Amino acid sequence: MDFEKRCPRFEKAVTILGKKWTPLILRSLMDGPRRFSGMCAYCPGLSDRLLSQRLQELEEAGVVERRVYSERPVAVEYTLTSMGQELREVLEAIQHWADRWTAPVEQGK
Amino acid sequence: MDFEKRCPRFEKAVTILGKKWTPLILRSLMDGPRRFSGMCAYCPGLSDRLLSQRLQELEEAGVVERRVYSERPVAVEYTLTSMGQELREVLEAIQHWADRWTAPVEQGK
Repeated sequence: MDFEKRCPRFEKAVTILGKKWTPLILRSLMDGPRRFSGMCAYCPGLSDRLLSQRLQELEEAGVVERRVYSERPVAVEYTLTSMGQELREVLEAIQHWADRWTAPVEQGK
Repeated sequence: MDFEKRCPRFEKAVTILGKKWTPLILRSLMDGPRRFSGMCAYCPGLSDRLLSQRLQELEEAGVVERRVYSERPVAVEYTLTSMGQELREVLEAIQHWADRWTAPVEQGK
């Protein structure tokens, strides 16, 4: 693969994926749907407000789907679309690199 | 690969890689060293100040190396370290996904 020249498609992709918290939000959904509270627990330090914003951006980009179940109380779940599921390769590549090159973040930080 | 549970190494990796402009800066260096001006041309819209900051962060993380050649005028080149070169798999996965799912950004935008 040749990276010598710029690529508008790559640039578009990283405007979707390269925002703070987005890779972690995507990772939280990779093995199945979650509720908002489940994602909060997966991304400690991420505020509810920013998580809502990121989820809305990912919905608009077609990566995440919001599902509302008409139970009482109403249940809302977030899930990856096919477009989102196909980011598994990206997350696996990051994980592979992380396992090889990064030291774990110290506990409590 | 299992993404059900959080992973401190993954979280550390995305604090390095998931900053605005960083994936594009890394892509600009993937096929060989560049000077500062070459990276500016590769990332239009990125200010000199922010490029400097990102490069410094990437140097501190061990991903990029700054090389100074004592010519007149002094030449400075940026290159990926081994740790940086091994991000090729991540960039290829993003490119693959981008080619499949994104429409090119309109010209002039």
